[in-house]
Amino acid sequence: MSLTHLSISFSSSSSAFLSSNSINSRTLKVAVPAKKNGICKCIATPPAETAAYKTKVSRNANMAKLQAGYLFPEIARRRAAHILKYPDAQVISLGIGDTTEPIPEVITSAMAQRSHSLSTLEGYSGYGAEQGEKKLRAAIASTFYADMGIEESDIFVSDGAKCDISRLQLLFGSNVTMAVQDPSYPAYVDSSVIMGQTGQFQKDIEKYGNIEYMRCSPENGFFPDLSTIQKTDIIFFCSPNNPTGSAATREQLTQLVRFAKENGSIIVYDSAYAMYISDDRPRSIFEIPGAKEVAIETTSFSKYAGFTGVRLGWTVVPKELLFSDGFPVAKDFNRIVCTCFNGASNIAQAGGLACLSPEGLKAMHEVVSFYKDNTKLIVDTFNSLGFKVYGGEHAPYVWVHFPGRSSWDVFAEILEKTHIVTTPGSGFGPGGEGFIRVSAFGHRGNVLEACKRFKLLYK
Amino acid sequence: MSLTHLSISFSSSSSAFLSSNSINSRTLKVAVPAKKNGICKCIATPPAETAAYKTKVSRNANMAKLQAGYLFPEIARRRAAHILKYPDAQVISLGIGDTTEPIPEVITSAMAQRSHSLSTLEGYSGYGAEQGEKKLRAAIASTFYADMGIEESDIFVSDGAKCDISRLQLLFGSNVTMAVQDPSYPAYVDSSVIMGQTGQFQKDIEKYGNIEYMRCSPENGFFPDLSTIQKTDIIFFCSPNNPTGSAATREQLTQLVRFAKENGSIIVYDSAYAMYISDDRPRSIFEIPGAKEVAIETTSFSKYAGFTGVRLGWTVVPKELLFSDGFPVAKDFNRIVCTCFNGASNIAQAGGLACLSPEGLKAMHEVVSFYKDNTKLIVDTFNSLGFKVYGGEHAPYVWVHFPGRSSWDVFAEILEKTHIVTTPGSGFGPGGEGFIRVSAFGHRGNVLEACKRFKLLYK
Repeated sequence: MSLTHLSISFSSSSSAFLSSNSINSRTLKVAVPAKKNGICKCIATPPAETAAYKTKVSRNANMAKLQAGYLFPEIARRRAAHILKYPDAQVISLGIGDTTEPIPEVITSAMAQRSHSLSTLEGYSGYGAEQGEKKLRAAIASTFYADMGIEESDIFVSDGAKCDISRLQLLFGSNVTMAVQDPSYPAYVDSSVIMGQTGQFQKDIEKYGNIEYMRCSPENGFFPDLSTIQKTDIIFFCSPNNPTGSAATREQLTQLVRFAKENGSIIVYDSAYAMYISDDRPRSIFEIPGAKEVAIETTSFSKYAGFTGVRLGWTVVPKELLFSDGFPVAKDFNRIVCTCFNGASNIAQAGGLACLSPEGLKAMHEVVSFYKDNTKLIVDTFNSLGFKVYGGEHAPYVWVHFPGRSSWDVFAEILEKTHIVTTPGSGFGPGGEGFIRVSAFGHRGNVLEACKRFKLLYK
Repeated sequence: MSLTHLSISFSSSSSAFLSSNSINSRTLKVAVPAKKNGICKCIATPPAETAAYKTKVSRNANMAKLQAGYLFPEIARRRAAHILKYPDAQVISLGIGDTTEPIPEVITSAMAQRSHSLSTLEGYSGYGAEQGEKKLRAAIASTFYADMGIEESDIFVSDGAKCDISRLQLLFGSNVTMAVQDPSYPAYVDSSVIMGQTGQFQKDIEKYGNIEYMRCSPENGFFPDLSTIQKTDIIFFCSPNNPTGSAATREQLTQLVRFAKENGSIIVYDSAYAMYISDDRPRSIFEIPGAKEVAIETTSFSKYAGFTGVRLGWTVVPKELLFSDGFPVAKDFNRIVCTCFNGASNIAQAGGLACLSPEGLKAMHEVVSFYKDNTKLIVDTFNSLGFKVYGGEHAPYVWVHFPGRSSWDVFAEILEKTHIVTTPGSGFGPGGEGFIRVSAFGHRGNVLEACKRFKLLYK
């Protein structure tokens, strides 16, 4: 494999989350990648005025606040543009965190069987409960929340955590305030903007108004200094964290629950990577005493069983969680789920049930284990090159520091010179500037090849 | 089968869409059905004050505006309560419009095959495009929109029309005004309330403030008198209509498009029952010249292929549709889909593609034809009993008039005396008062049995 264009220089443009000028295409000599190939239609600026008929409906001002495209379609777009430029390149994707390994057969067989049975009189079923099938809810409760006081009726099965995050935002409405880890998975901030909870994007500090950004950096061990954090209604908290790969300890989560209780806040705890935890750190926020009164947990089968395309997750809203007037949050969430959703696909739910059988659980652990071995290869590679490397131990993400450099520049440098797609840290918030997220989701051969290319580039 | 309790009298309570007192349980002697059985947690009034810890987060005021539960879970709850009361009754459900016939094997085989292939290296796929698989989008465009200028890129594949209605509301935001047919499928109004587009529920007229209710009744042939309708930003319009079963003619839809254009409104056209149309009425709003500049269309595989549980639908947002500032509506909808959704299940999409093969289309037409034969049986039954009966010709719903009576009373009378679940017309809006919707989704034997029981009750 030849590494071309090693001599190209990179502009050090500011990233502004994902502003369209964040890569200087002239310096990069990239053949105009953006708005012409039709892959991503998420752009921020309106097109030039034309004589076309216009309705009199005003564009939703919240939509107009959003900066450029949602991060991952944007990465996919840049990948596609790169392939156009280098049609023969062997591009390796360690970018959007997409699973690559086949789904264990014990799980796909159950889905195939459910599919077949839908063509029989006895096996056919129509609308299911919006909250999910009783058996699956019960299996989730007993598999993941035994001894935590979480019951079947607290579980809402869904088509994935990202979708539930938006439904939770609908539940909260536009009059709440929000805190997020900085950096964080972009769906929290973007859905908050869409719901109208935020102010405008402030270009100088690369933050939206009215969101509390809780900085998570190597200096604080990727856990925010809560004494400096403003009280908000809602606290989004992801652990093991996407993108930094760090996982909060029991003491840290105890602090977080206490902080929420003191402020009367609700934590939305995203535990989509919990099975990647290597030691006895909590897998669920509900391992922390008192959490049921302050927290919601949202998670997914995506990264355990390779369900990124099958679509299945769940959200736990404990009956103990109450609004200030004493109204149970779960009752309003149930109303949202009944009105705005119609349940996850029954075939995916059959797969979920198979995931929680003894064979299914064993198979999921093997999948997780495979990706964790990938992670180790990537961590060792960057360590050997002298980089400061974070994450990776409890999560399938490696967070590599490039001090003083723009994330988008490093992203572009790596893509251009090694044909490897990563994710620029600043795409996850201003606190991610200077970092690159390397995903461990990939075939072993590709990960080994990527490690070779990284060594060639940065030795 | 014995028809018991024929002599019970019914209170003529007002319905208030679905207020919790709409059936007088004492008069009905129903064993306290509501808040105790855990099936439906959607209730409007907060529980009694307790000493439990409360967060300081205020309940979303829009959620508090909603009247009682979403209609169909409410119907399911009442059905369950009835079964508790009469455990030996042979209950027949012609209520929530749930499909009952097996999915044609050509379709389930494709889904089973896709499931199996997900366990292979070559067949595995992770995250798909949020907008749906290219082949499916292309097949939808060519099957349903040939010669209408709708292209693959205008199609957004989804997990169903109900889910897309909420995503469209997110797109529009809280500062738009809304018109709906009265009666109409409750998801339009309820999602509008949740988004904060409406005022409070006005009990005296059984309407929410700031929604324009377009009355559709036998007097106007179930098409609103547009000369009396206030200009709104958005017009929800469902044809063939749920619940009235009427389908708008080409002339009526031409009027509607002209009306939208005069007012600068956007039509959200729900065509989920289009395949049930018996004559040459338009199957799509895009058959009307100029509609691409004023309309979105949302629809579903649910009622054609029995996909109510599999979950697959699509929404068409033509690139020609522009906000008042010229910004394309499709670009913002794409951003919503990318941020708040992760695509329909890949297995369901494989099923959708099979639906659109020549064999799949033939099989779907047979399913539709089966339900249409059911419809005819129900229409003939009520006609023979001297009722005024509407709908049924172009839709799987029969709309039966009980002049001067409360819908909920008739619903309860039918359930109590015949063990048949229907849907009270007033659950679809004040314009549905005095009507009952009878769904034609059912096994032939059950529909025949139901017709017998109707004849026994109303002869």
